[in-house]
Amino acid sequence: MSEVYAARRARLRERCEAGGSAAALVTGEANLRYLAADAPAGSALLVGPGQDLLVCTRDPFTDVAGGRPAEDLRVFVLPTPEGDPAVAAAERAAAAGAASLAVEEHHLTVARHRAVRSVAPRLRLDDLGTAVEQQRIVKDNEEISCLRIAAEIADQALGELLESILVGRTERHLALELERRLIDHGAEGTAFPTSVGTGPHSGLAGHTPTDRRVEEGDFLSVCLGADYRGYRSEIARTFVIGTSPADWQIELYEQVFAAQRAGREALAPGTAYRDVDRAARVVLEAAGHGERVGPRVGHGVGLENDEDPRLAPSAMGKLDACVPVAVDPGVHLPGRGGVRIDDTLVVRPEADGGPELLTITTKELLAL
Amino acid sequence: MSEVYAARRARLRERCEAGGSAAALVTGEANLRYLAADAPAGSALLVGPGQDLLVCTRDPFTDVAGGRPAEDLRVFVLPTPEGDPAVAAAERAAAAGAASLAVEEHHLTVARHRAVRSVAPRLRLDDLGTAVEQQRIVKDNEEISCLRIAAEIADQALGELLESILVGRTERHLALELERRLIDHGAEGTAFPTSVGTGPHSGLAGHTPTDRRVEEGDFLSVCLGADYRGYRSEIARTFVIGTSPADWQIELYEQVFAAQRAGREALAPGTAYRDVDRAARVVLEAAGHGERVGPRVGHGVGLENDEDPRLAPSAMGKLDACVPVAVDPGVHLPGRGGVRIDDTLVVRPEADGGPELLTITTKELLAL
Repeated sequence: MSEVYAARRARLRERCEAGGSAAALVTGEANLRYLAADAPAGSALLVGPGQDLLVCTRDPFTDVAGGRPAEDLRVFVLPTPEGDPAVAAAERAAAAGAASLAVEEHHLTVARHRAVRSVAPRLRLDDLGTAVEQQRIVKDNEEISCLRIAAEIADQALGELLESILVGRTERHLALELERRLIDHGAEGTAFPTSVGTGPHSGLAGHTPTDRRVEEGDFLSVCLGADYRGYRSEIARTFVIGTSPADWQIELYEQVFAAQRAGREALAPGTAYRDVDRAARVVLEAAGHGERVGPRVGHGVGLENDEDPRLAPSAMGKLDACVPVAVDPGVHLPGRGGVRIDDTLVVRPEADGGPELLTITTKELLAL
Repeated sequence: MSEVYAARRARLRERCEAGGSAAALVTGEANLRYLAADAPAGSALLVGPGQDLLVCTRDPFTDVAGGRPAEDLRVFVLPTPEGDPAVAAAERAAAAGAASLAVEEHHLTVARHRAVRSVAPRLRLDDLGTAVEQQRIVKDNEEISCLRIAAEIADQALGELLESILVGRTERHLALELERRLIDHGAEGTAFPTSVGTGPHSGLAGHTPTDRRVEEGDFLSVCLGADYRGYRSEIARTFVIGTSPADWQIELYEQVFAAQRAGREALAPGTAYRDVDRAARVVLEAAGHGERVGPRVGHGVGLENDEDPRLAPSAMGKLDACVPVAVDPGVHLPGRGGVRIDDTLVVRPEADGGPELLTITTKELLAL
């Protein structure tokens, strides 16, 4: 496994040198995991000059629950946990004779950046920008199989919930039960806070569960994901409670379903991000929900639940093969509720059968 | 309630003006909650000039689950959620004729700071530093009663767990059950990830629960806290599984208990932070555990689980009345396990009966 991380860091190093920086200082949490495997929270990774160095506030080899950093890394544990690994790493870079250091200005605070500058005044600090985030967009087979397992776990947790009695239970409890089942099925954690919305709360993006109880006739929308080895799946489904959905519920569900399908079907290597958004958005605009659609209809998934690319009207760029994304349009009608349907898929070429659906729970409108 | 927040902002405004800044830009999450009540995640608060302004990416009045910002605030919702509230707030400050703006350089990233500078080039950007964090150290009665309720909730959840069968269950499941019970008893969430450590994992600070199962003869240490209205309690207890603890377990427990009691008894207005650390630390040093004690034996609690003051050897400052703190020394013996005992207390003067204990679960060594 260690070679994978070394190869990733080698790519970053090339990118850095091409940009004129002698070394890179990585402090973004997911970026660290991508380049160094498991490092304690708050660690900093120095990529070049010389052998790469991981600086930590606690010893990763005595943290029984935590995983292990890539074997080929040098590891330096700060003598005092009050120290800043980024500062210590910059000191090492300067001591190693680096003339410049590219830092993640979108992760590093102004205060930490100043501290880095003060310990290495002769070191020119450049901006690494989102170089690592961009490198993370296309996943390898190992990463995709982690996402596949994460998606299976969420499908299992959701499937079990649907077999239980729902009426009378609160959003909070349903969310907790789903999270317990994710762990039961092997998740290391939740990919993000599980969202459960009932009745007027249904269909709201990122709705925080409340004490509202499930009632007959409600829409029930759930959004959950599993974290498996750091990779985070995402799935959302919407159901009707009771026997027969109302006409407005059937109509709204069909509209959102059609939009989500259009988004999924637009996924192909070479398709512009914004065209995927467009494909789903036009369906909901045609149904008169233009203003109710969120700012985007999907996003990348991986080590972060919500990462590049953004599938939004203003997004620049094109999809590649092996890019996992969530396609998650939804519509919420104030006071009445709404529908959200969300799948995790992997972009594949037509020749390979097109987009690979990882979240396989049915999307027909179930009455529970 | 609104007056409380207005008064807090008035104090910050005075502090700012004394520091020579015309206005303050607050972006730290807990600081926002302290000054503006409930604001959507990622909001920015402009304190002065003129009426205070809360800038959000989503409308706090349509977020059904979220609370409401303080009524006296002007609220501006960005037209596009991709916008940065801090940048928009800075634009408003400049438009309002402010010459200078104090920002939280320890929260704002270099990239956001640059964006703020670019939209308001004539605005001098100062550093607000930890002004709001310092203001938050001494709590009012409302805040303390929220912490009192949060502590009660955690006591109830822990008490129920102790009545259930523990042998054979995994750390992960015990942690999840505790979290479910916290919600059952009215917590809005967990104050921090619940830690459950068994056998060789017991006594580890911030141990992430694993699939290890509770066994006869184990030490079992749990650390949990409830979030009640944003205020986060903390409690840790250590138990023995089985009928009779081993001699080394009794000895280690008594040592940690004595250290924790010494720390609690040192809590008084006017006592230096470092002297509280010292009081607990000397007990464990005398027992030969000097190197096994963590970097500090306690810390403030409030809107963040871990906030100022730090009760550590290097900490500067003295305790005041109405400062809630967690006193949480622990010792872990590699390969064997350890003990952690943690209470949330409020510093009170001797005349008022001394430190007020909020977490009342027994600290005698229970064999479960």
